[in-house]
Amino acid sequence: MEHATRIEVRYAETDKMGIVYHANYLVWLEVARAHFLDSLGFPYAETEKQGFMAPVLSVEVTYGSPFTYGDVAMVYTFITKLSPVRVEYSYRIYAEGEDPLTCKPRLSAKTTHCLVDAKTFRPVSQKKMLPELYAAYQSVLIDD
Amino acid sequence: MEHATRIEVRYAETDKMGIVYHANYLVWLEVARAHFLDSLGFPYAETEKQGFMAPVLSVEVTYGSPFTYGDVAMVYTFITKLSPVRVEYSYRIYAEGEDPLTCKPRLSAKTTHCLVDAKTFRPVSQKKMLPELYAAYQSVLIDD
Amino acid sequence: MEHATRIEVRYAETDKMGIVYHANYLVWLEVARAHFLDSLGFPYAETEKQGFMAPVLSVEVTYGSPFTYGDVAMVYTFITKLSPVRVEYSYRIYAEGEDPLTCKPRLSAKTTHCLVDAKTFRPVSQKKMLPELYAAYQSVLIDD
Amino acid sequence: MEHATRIEVRYAETDKMGIVYHANYLVWLEVARAHFLDSLGFPYAETEKQGFMAPVLSVEVTYGSPFTYGDVAMVYTFITKLSPVRVEYSYRIYAEGEDPLTCKPRLSAKTTHCLVDAKTFRPVSQKKMLPELYAAYQSVLIDD
Repeated sequence: MEHATRIEVRYAETDKMGIVYHANYLVWLEVARAHFLDSLGFPYAETEKQGFMAPVLSVEVTYGSPFTYGDVAMVYTFITKLSPVRVEYSYRIYAEGEDPLTCKPRLSAKTTHCLVDAKTFRPVSQKKMLPELYAAYQSVLIDD
Repeated sequence: MEHATRIEVRYAETDKMGIVYHANYLVWLEVARAHFLDSLGFPYAETEKQGFMAPVLSVEVTYGSPFTYGDVAMVYTFITKLSPVRVEYSYRIYAEGEDPLTCKPRLSAKTTHCLVDAKTFRPVSQKKMLPELYAAYQSVLIDD
Repeated sequence: MEHATRIEVRYAETDKMGIVYHANYLVWLEVARAHFLDSLGFPYAETEKQGFMAPVLSVEVTYGSPFTYGDVAMVYTFITKLSPVRVEYSYRIYAEGEDPLTCKPRLSAKTTHCLVDAKTFRPVSQKKMLPELYAAYQSVLIDD
Repeated sequence: MEHATRIEVRYAETDKMGIVYHANYLVWLEVARAHFLDSLGFPYAETEKQGFMAPVLSVEVTYGSPFTYGDVAMVYTFITKLSPVRVEYSYRIYAEGEDPLTCKPRLSAKTTHCLVDAKTFRPVSQKKMLPELYAAYQSVLIDD
C-alpha cells in the first residue's frame, strides 16, 4: 500500500535561511503517520483513548533539497519493520508534482515506535494489546 | 517588584523574514511568567502537581522593533490586575543593554489567566484554592 | 465574502495540558490568512517575491473552549479595517460541524499588518505599491 | 574539550503525552551547537554575517527517558567527525545533576552539516573558506 499526505509549507515552519527549519520536518512525518493510521482504520487519537501511546524511540533523517514557503510537499509513508513490540516507519518526501519513481526524494527518514501504557509509560506488546492494528501493520509491511 | 528574564534568540524561532516569528514571542512570555512565579516562590510545575492549571484566557501583543538571531532579549514581567478568579500579567521586552527607562520596548503584551481544576478544566477561585500565591500576587500588584 | 480554512490539530501543537498550546493558534491564523489571500488571488509568497513583506503589528486573542488532538478547526477570516498603510484581519475559530450562526467561537482574534519593503524593512503604502491587492481588500471589507 | 549547555524545559515544548515533544529536542541540539561554537570563538551569527550557512544534512536521535516540564537538561556536545566539507556533531543529554560517567543519557544524537554560500546555497569547503574555524574543530575533534 502506498500512502501520501499533502502538506503546504507554513510560514511559521521557515527559518532565517529562508527554508523549512530542519526540526519541523519531524512534525510533517507525524502528520503523515497519523494519516497513514487513519487510512488503516486506526486513528491515533483512538489508540490514546484506549489507554495507549506510541512514543518515538528513534529518528533518522537525511535532508536533500529544501522546501520553502509556497511549496507543497507530498510525504510517502511505509511500514518497513515490525515486531511484537516495535514498528518502523519509513518516509520519503517529494515536492508535489515530482514523480517518486524518477525523482530523488527531498528528504528520507525512518522513525521507530513502541507502544506504552498511557498511565505507567511502560512498554506493552502491540501484538497482544492491539492485535487488529498489528494485523493491519503486517498487511502493509514492505521490504525497505 | 521588577523581574527580568534573559532570553537568547534561538535559530528555530526565526522565520524567512529573518526575524523572530511573531507567535514565538508568546513562548518567551510564558518562560518569563514561569521565572516570575519561581521568583515569587510558586513554581508553576508545583501548581500543576497540586492539581491546578492556569490556562491563558487572552493575549494582546504590540510588536515593535524585531529581534533576530544573535540578539538577546530581556523580558520584564508585572502583575497588573488581580481578582479572585483572574490575573493579568503585563510584559515589556527590550534588547539586553537597552534602558527600560529611556528606550521604547520592542514588544508590549498582556496575558490573562484563570485557575482551573486540572482534572475537570473547570475554573476555581485562586484566592480560595491557592491563598498564598494570591497573597504573593497582591504584594507585587502594580498599576499598569 | 466569507472564507473558512480547515485545520486538523497536529500532535506537535498540543501541550501537557492535553490541549493546543495557546501560541500555536497564531500559526493557524497565519495559515488562514494565507488561504484568504490565495482566495483573493494574491498569494503571500508572490507578494514576497515582488519585494514586500507584511509583518504583524499587533495581535489580540480571546481563548474559549480549547481544541485537542483529533479535533478539526474551521478558521473564518475577515478584513475588518483598512487604511493605505494598515490592514486588520479578524478571525473566529469553530470546531468543524459547529454552526457559526448559533455557536460561540472557540477563539476570536484580530491581527494588524503593515507592508514593508523586504530589503529595508521600512513601511510602504500598500495602496500605492500593491493597488490591486488594496482594491481586493476594499471589496471584501466588512464592519466587525 | 567537554562542553555542556543547560536548558530548562519550556511548557511550549511539551505535548499531550506530558513530555517534551520529540522534534523539540532538535532545537535543543541547535542551541547547544550554537553555545559550543561560541565557546570555540566562532558564534554562528558571525558565520552567517560572513556570508555562509551551515545547514543540517542528517540527524540521528535515540530517545531514552523523557524530559517533562520542571526538568532541566544538560546537553553535552562533541565534534566526532571532520572533513574539509563536513562536520559531525554528537550530543548526549542528561538531566541536570546526573553524572555522565555513570548515568545512561536521556537522549543521544548526531547531526552532520556542510557549509554553503548563503546566496547560492552551494556547498563550499569549510577548510578553505573558514580555516580558523576548521582548525578549531580539529583541536576539539574526538573519537566517538
